[in-house]
Amino acid sequence: MKEYFKVDEWKVIEEGFDPHYNKVAESVFSLGNGRMGQRANFEEAYSGETLQGNYVAGVYYPDKTRVGWWKNGYPEYFAKVLNAANWIGIDVQIDGEQLDLAKCEVLSFYRELNMQEGYIKRSFKAKTALGKEVGVEATRFCSMVDDECGAISYTITPLNFEGELTLTPYIDGDIVNKDSNYDEKFWDEVSKSVSNDAGYVQLRTKKTGFEVATAMKLVLVQDGSAIEFESLPVEKEKYIAAEIKVQATAGKSLTLYKYAANLSSQNYDKAELAEKALQRVETIAAKGFDAMLAEQAAAWAEKWKHNDIIIEGDAKAQQGIRFNIFQLNQTYTGEDDRLNIGPKGFTGEKYGGSTYWDTEAYCVPFYLATAEQKVARNLLLYRYKQLGKAIDNAKLLGFKDGAALYPMVTMDGTECHNEWEITFEEIHRNGAIAFAIYNYVRYTGDDAYLTDYGLEVLIAISRFWSQRITWSAAKEQYVMLGVTGPNEYENNVNNNWYTSTIAVWCMQYTLEVIGKVKQADSGKYATLAAKISFEEATETGRFEDIIAKMYFAQDEKLGIFLQQDGFLDKEQILVKDLPAADRPLVQKWSWDRILRSVFIKQADVLQGLYFLEDRYDIDTIRRNYDFYEPRTVHESSLSPCVHAILAAKLGDVERAYTFYLRTSRLDIDDYNNDTEDGCHITSMAGTWMSVVEGFAGMRVKDGMLSFNPLLPDEWKALSFQIGFRGSLLNIRIAKEGTTVKNLSEMDVVVLVNGEEISIKGKGEMLVGS
Amino acid sequence: MKEYFKVDEWKVIEEGFDPHYNKVAESVFSLGNGRMGQRANFEEAYSGETLQGNYVAGVYYPDKTRVGWWKNGYPEYFAKVLNAANWIGIDVQIDGEQLDLAKCEVLSFYRELNMQEGYIKRSFKAKTALGKEVGVEATRFCSMVDDECGAISYTITPLNFEGELTLTPYIDGDIVNKDSNYDEKFWDEVSKSVSNDAGYVQLRTKKTGFEVATAMKLVLVQDGSAIEFESLPVEKEKYIAAEIKVQATAGKSLTLYKYAANLSSQNYDKAELAEKALQRVETIAAKGFDAMLAEQAAAWAEKWKHNDIIIEGDAKAQQGIRFNIFQLNQTYTGEDDRLNIGPKGFTGEKYGGSTYWDTEAYCVPFYLATAEQKVARNLLLYRYKQLGKAIDNAKLLGFKDGAALYPMVTMDGTECHNEWEITFEEIHRNGAIAFAIYNYVRYTGDDAYLTDYGLEVLIAISRFWSQRITWSAAKEQYVMLGVTGPNEYENNVNNNWYTSTIAVWCMQYTLEVIGKVKQADSGKYATLAAKISFEEATETGRFEDIIAKMYFAQDEKLGIFLQQDGFLDKEQILVKDLPAADRPLVQKWSWDRILRSVFIKQADVLQGLYFLEDRYDIDTIRRNYDFYEPRTVHESSLSPCVHAILAAKLGDVERAYTFYLRTSRLDIDDYNNDTEDGCHITSMAGTWMSVVEGFAGMRVKDGMLSFNPLLPDEWKALSFQIGFRGSLLNIRIAKEGTTVKNLSEMDVVVLVNGEEISIKGKGEMLVGS
Repeated sequence: MKEYFKVDEWKVIEEGFDPHYNKVAESVFSLGNGRMGQRANFEEAYSGETLQGNYVAGVYYPDKTRVGWWKNGYPEYFAKVLNAANWIGIDVQIDGEQLDLAKCEVLSFYRELNMQEGYIKRSFKAKTALGKEVGVEATRFCSMVDDECGAISYTITPLNFEGELTLTPYIDGDIVNKDSNYDEKFWDEVSKSVSNDAGYVQLRTKKTGFEVATAMKLVLVQDGSAIEFESLPVEKEKYIAAEIKVQATAGKSLTLYKYAANLSSQNYDKAELAEKALQRVETIAAKGFDAMLAEQAAAWAEKWKHNDIIIEGDAKAQQGIRFNIFQLNQTYTGEDDRLNIGPKGFTGEKYGGSTYWDTEAYCVPFYLATAEQKVARNLLLYRYKQLGKAIDNAKLLGFKDGAALYPMVTMDGTECHNEWEITFEEIHRNGAIAFAIYNYVRYTGDDAYLTDYGLEVLIAISRFWSQRITWSAAKEQYVMLGVTGPNEYENNVNNNWYTSTIAVWCMQYTLEVIGKVKQADSGKYATLAAKISFEEATETGRFEDIIAKMYFAQDEKLGIFLQQDGFLDKEQILVKDLPAADRPLVQKWSWDRILRSVFIKQADVLQGLYFLEDRYDIDTIRRNYDFYEPRTVHESSLSPCVHAILAAKLGDVERAYTFYLRTSRLDIDDYNNDTEDGCHITSMAGTWMSVVEGFAGMRVKDGMLSFNPLLPDEWKALSFQIGFRGSLLNIRIAKEGTTVKNLSEMDVVVLVNGEEISIKGKGEMLVGS
Repeated sequence: MKEYFKVDEWKVIEEGFDPHYNKVAESVFSLGNGRMGQRANFEEAYSGETLQGNYVAGVYYPDKTRVGWWKNGYPEYFAKVLNAANWIGIDVQIDGEQLDLAKCEVLSFYRELNMQEGYIKRSFKAKTALGKEVGVEATRFCSMVDDECGAISYTITPLNFEGELTLTPYIDGDIVNKDSNYDEKFWDEVSKSVSNDAGYVQLRTKKTGFEVATAMKLVLVQDGSAIEFESLPVEKEKYIAAEIKVQATAGKSLTLYKYAANLSSQNYDKAELAEKALQRVETIAAKGFDAMLAEQAAAWAEKWKHNDIIIEGDAKAQQGIRFNIFQLNQTYTGEDDRLNIGPKGFTGEKYGGSTYWDTEAYCVPFYLATAEQKVARNLLLYRYKQLGKAIDNAKLLGFKDGAALYPMVTMDGTECHNEWEITFEEIHRNGAIAFAIYNYVRYTGDDAYLTDYGLEVLIAISRFWSQRITWSAAKEQYVMLGVTGPNEYENNVNNNWYTSTIAVWCMQYTLEVIGKVKQADSGKYATLAAKISFEEATETGRFEDIIAKMYFAQDEKLGIFLQQDGFLDKEQILVKDLPAADRPLVQKWSWDRILRSVFIKQADVLQGLYFLEDRYDIDTIRRNYDFYEPRTVHESSLSPCVHAILAAKLGDVERAYTFYLRTSRLDIDDYNNDTEDGCHITSMAGTWMSVVEGFAGMRVKDGMLSFNPLLPDEWKALSFQIGFRGSLLNIRIAKEGTTVKNLSEMDVVVLVNGEEISIKGKGEMLVGS
């Protein structure tokens, strides 16, 4: 854990410049608007350590899968997040000397991410090798209002010299992807042009043929007024620039506004892309930087109104949760049902593909509570639309009769991951997708979704389980062999408790939904059954038989569920006994050693107890928590939040607080030494859960919201807004009790500590603690 | 199984040309002399399906390891078998039209591998697109006498035309490796030259910097006399040729002799390579093709005298065993202790690296019995010399204090395989290396080897086991978690019976050898103990504790050892119930499906029963055989031989015969649809074992050879030579009994069916059956 950034409730602040930390800072200060995004690279040249990254949502590259040894069933292609044209670049030359912080003496440096209004600001003073001192102030954002646009204000002030200043704003499409086979480049040029103050580059991705036009418009301002300039247009392969020379005067600032737009062929005719992109930059330039920034602040204010979590008395915790909510909102807005939530969002390339089980297991609850219902519904429909490909994927692995296995990682429904122990065996993802349907319906009461879409997915998933589970004559029970659970530090194990449990739960829930749908609309049920050739009696008979006779690994003596068969044969060492030098294990130990060890990467049995908590008494949960928590290394970002929620449920407020801090400040404090690759976006939804489901103890019970608050000593109060079935509530948990404010017109009933509380429209109530 | 080639006791014959079978034929007709080798590609151009391959022993390329997801502990580089310069090429043009069997009408075609004398001969008549008919007769060999040389006699006869014939013999170093990342080329040119009738190309491998000079010398003969010719020298990048134009007359044959040499910087100064290669081709050309071929026949006659197995009454079985012995002798001669036995020998690139556990588990017995003692000893010393690297390799995986894990695949002692489930977990290879020491000493009685080299290796291996094995508090026994056994259709299993058994055996044998060495030479023992910091009391105490308290997976009810924990939880389906369309599984099933299934790739429990048969009573062996045999798909070439030996031991002559045929004709009949990649060289030693240890039942007991013959009904008699501790025996097994002929001067005692038989020097004895 580092404490590099300054603590502030609404900002992340970097004071002074440490080049070793630059890639981490580039990740943390990333910007996005759901449609496009970028790492916080510098506008001017930087020859030090940096990971350049600009991304356009939904634009990917299917790179040829490379493995040492091919396994039957591997996908041919692997969808990679594409590094797109760099539109922020502004090259600065002072009397022919390039401004480059890696080659200057940095006299002062300040950078902030303003989360309240949605921009980054950077100011520095630097002295070049030849002794020229300049001050720079740069502000930049990706507009939430004009969501294909971004804008930069770049002010440069000569401090101790007169001379020629050359500013060369450019668009560079000749970029490399960090994650490419043999440094292959993924973009071809379609067209480009550049005039005195505007220009564009249109590029096409290889293979997929996506086209993106990136345009810029330039405005130069001095002494508060736009000034005329004559630039030298520059064109190179996939690159345009306008070279602007001005006479610099010491102490006299010059501001370059660079307006940019990224238009993609997903949304426009390819033939019109360039023209529309050029029009768009004219439009936003006419609006002007300050007006755009004001709109940006207003848009963020509106978001915060619904999303904000206020933690009083603990600035670090406050900053952490806001950072998480901010990044989630930058990544996915729910406007476009073709998009999903990549594990790194717009902050890096790592992991490729956009959709993991993270979406269903961690992100759906966040969007359910903080956005319109259609946002979570769109996330569910995304999988519904990909059901055909999930059935194809299962076929490839030898399943049949409409069984579906959703991909581990995907961009368009096809699998694009290629480690056999994950691709073929980490099948619990199917369970999370089913669970998200259950969770969505439980939260929204939208039963019609089951009839129209949900049941079809559930049957396909249950078919998969019923084929994947086999009979053990030795045990005289059903078993599930050869799986990898959520804990990826075990591979190819038998009877992983979590996977077996979620599988059987899927079949039970499918049976329940069949009953519901038959009753609600027997005609639609019959149509569906015919469409998917569902042999109800035989197939549900198989489900029921498995439900009745499934084997679950457990240990009677310890009274715990077993991660998998044979777990107790391992050397029972605890995390606290691990030497610090051995961690993180994934970087220090060979894979086999990790696999043989007792150490758990992320919640696994506990993940199941979290999802299905109503099935287990509190002692069972406690015994399992007490057993597994000391063996868990949390080397997945998705782990601490589940532990935080369970710790809170068990009343262990201290541990809940520790886990919360860890999950919420994972990237700001670079906990796992990997923030330089990008931020852990999907786990940020888990952070939100650890507050709302953890400390506030929020659940849905019998169609009502329920709260079981538990406030850490460090906090004066915790408050947040929750949307639920048309109502909007503000919950404030403080030492003196929990205040529920009903912001909507309709009356609502909530449970607080198990007690039913009725609150009139626009009313509020304090429930003493 | 195909029956493409004709059956002949001394030859493999191809009659008629089937392009679809060309790559298989290229593998089967491969040539080698231990020093260099090649696939049976055509001399003239061929634009059809072909896998070009020329190899120089010990010359490899460390290609950058590529995997989808890197695991800690993977090697940086992967040693690849290098496709070297093509020295066989002779381009033929008839009036400007290129001779290319893919573009001709093939009027007749005949190709034979003459195993008795060690050459391939090919003759064909073809009609070109323009109607020219030619006859060609080509004979080629890699010389066993001049072991860096090869020679070709290429006779062409115009059948229906007069005109200009252009022969362009060449050396082409601009070759591609099939197994390369992104078609990268591995050779750079050092120098080259070409004169009227000779030339060379010297190439250097990238990274490793091996240099190989490949030279040729040309002689043209017509009507029995060499004729003068004037050629046009051609030079291109890494390529030289001499273009020879002659006037062709119908019916008049012309013979081009092409003499070649491959000299490597492993054996010569780089500066002298070219000169020496050019001298070498002059020398052999002076000797002449016919003389060389006669020497070749004589060298092979000498080999056959010691190696041959004669099966009377079954030409198919006879051809099979000779093919195996022939290829083994082509691959490894034991002359050079830096070399080892690659799984594909000189017949293809697949698998990379040269040394697998195949050497110790399958090849050592063959060389022990058929070659001088130093040959097997050299194979053992190869590992002794690499002990330091095996210790480094174990360190990389977290082991310490001199524990050694030999690599799965290697060229120079460093690991060069990169699938975690194999590289890190298929650790039983350590056991085979220890077993080979035991086997060598049992066979030769060379106890001094233990003192000088063997014990050091044994302790390092036992140290590894003692760290790899851990205590299970749940079982109150030692366990071995997370391994892959010989059966690679299981990955990351617990308590694989074979691995646990061989591990405990290693420790037992190490203790035994410690005792022996201490007694034989306590001084040397003390020196060794000091050198390797061997804490005898503590370390042997740990070995003994593990030996006493090791857990072995077994099933009491069935009375069998279990492949691994949980094996009986699998669906117990038998191979006979698998649809033919599902096989081979590795090509038809996804990996997870294979792993979950009961099907066994290759002998695993049975491998252990084979190695350590003296420890188990015949009923135990039979119960395990009866259980595992019907579940084994033999998709490893190393499997049927072990089953054949056990079947013979159990008196199941029919099954032993079936397995024998399968193992001996694996490549000739292309059993596993993969001969096109090359032949299964190391498993050929297993074929030899299945005859000698299977049908002849040969073992070493108390320092004597022992035989328990079992003759298949199909065979009239079986005979072979065996060298044993200075004596040479001929064994002939026939219906009427077993004749042991003592070819040496010294008296010998052997066991036949458990009875001691003394045979005087040069005497013989028939033991009735």
